[in-house]
Amino acid sequence: MSAPKAVVLLSGGLDSITVLAIAKSKGYQCYTIGFDYGQKHMAELAAAEAIAQHWADAPHRVIQLDLRSIGGSALTTDTIAVPTSGVASTGIPVTYVPARNTVFLSIAMGYAEVLGARTLMIGANAVDYSGYPDCRPAFITQFEALANVATSAVDDGSQWSVIAPLMQLSKAEIIRAGIALGVDYSLTVSCYQADQQGRACGACDACRLRRAGFLEAEVPDPTRYQPGVSALT
Amino acid sequence: MSAPKAVVLLSGGLDSITVLAIAKSKGYQCYTIGFDYGQKHMAELAAAEAIAQHWADAPHRVIQLDLRSIGGSALTTDTIAVPTSGVASTGIPVTYVPARNTVFLSIAMGYAEVLGARTLMIGANAVDYSGYPDCRPAFITQFEALANVATSAVDDGSQWSVIAPLMQLSKAEIIRAGIALGVDYSLTVSCYQADQQGRACGACDACRLRRAGFLEAEVPDPTRYQPGVSALT
Repeated sequence: MSAPKAVVLLSGGLDSITVLAIAKSKGYQCYTIGFDYGQKHMAELAAAEAIAQHWADAPHRVIQLDLRSIGGSALTTDTIAVPTSGVASTGIPVTYVPARNTVFLSIAMGYAEVLGARTLMIGANAVDYSGYPDCRPAFITQFEALANVATSAVDDGSQWSVIAPLMQLSKAEIIRAGIALGVDYSLTVSCYQADQQGRACGACDACRLRRAGFLEAEVPDPTRYQPGVSALT
Repeated sequence: MSAPKAVVLLSGGLDSITVLAIAKSKGYQCYTIGFDYGQKHMAELAAAEAIAQHWADAPHRVIQLDLRSIGGSALTTDTIAVPTSGVASTGIPVTYVPARNTVFLSIAMGYAEVLGARTLMIGANAVDYSGYPDCRPAFITQFEALANVATSAVDDGSQWSVIAPLMQLSKAEIIRAGIALGVDYSLTVSCYQADQQGRACGACDACRLRRAGFLEAEVPDPTRYQPGVSALT
């Protein structure tokens, strides 16, 4: 019997490469999918391509999707700036892209249905990003329930699994898990406003959480920063 | 107090124009959204634009979304033909686009969140298209439950309404409801393989169900057919 197939959401960041390594370690045939959704920089798309070549079982799929037409987020609207003064402790951050994970999982679900897969894996995490509604456990549970009625599973009796293996891990724990599986984090781009070469700003929430994670995990930070930004090692 | 806002999925077909007319009759401020998702013809997009100009409260939003990269349906894959020999009575038709309504509702949910709306309206119908999993009542109920945990509603305590007012109506009942509200069905395109001018083939499932609906409703069929196809009036 061949290995079960999983569709893995791959953004090119630290979390999703770890999810992919975990999926491989569990024996899944991994099909990766990413989105060119109008984000402010494209460096993460190039990173995802390189990561998939190393880890995935099929060419990386990139779906064109214009979330800029909707706006409402610092990540998709030029008139809303990416905050760089520190991670806010309350409320939903302006980097929240309305409905993003729902849209991404929905398209991944369609791809999985075409492949005959019933497993989706996503790097949602409730520890560092608890401000995002669509990164919490209740969202994942509810999406799984939706998948069971939204697809041919409703007729063939099969069950979907939507797995978010990083949900309860700190950034440091994610990094340690990845290192144990052989992940090379220098391939990844997390920064919300990376430059054309994929170099990080060091100041946005994603950079801050990532740097703190490497520090806490006591792993040298392999991130390439923009000139004038010092790495924490 | 201003009228509540609703985001209405508008494909340019017979069902969605009727939903829009119903939404207006209920007093909603209507924001329409449609998708250029790689369907085989674009006539329905032009139809949606004209319909929104007449009925909606804001310019029609068209979201670019490449579902062709996923394939798996006669509507998005050139190698799968649209069936023209009659409506199958069992199973999921090859015109089913995996995850389509989930993707469409997800993006509409994001647009609604940016607008501050909590109501989505969709022309899903379980009578004529019961073969599509994502056109059944359980799907709508489950999507509404998802919206409540997937968005800022989870923190502000508001509740989403996902309304499918045509769910239990026959095509003839839909047409009668629309006529009573002043809908001009000559604006709409339902055919799966309309030509560049929006003229219908008369043979695909969508054409067959539509023609039978006008006949049963005893309403003259205003559909523009391709040369050689006779209208039923």
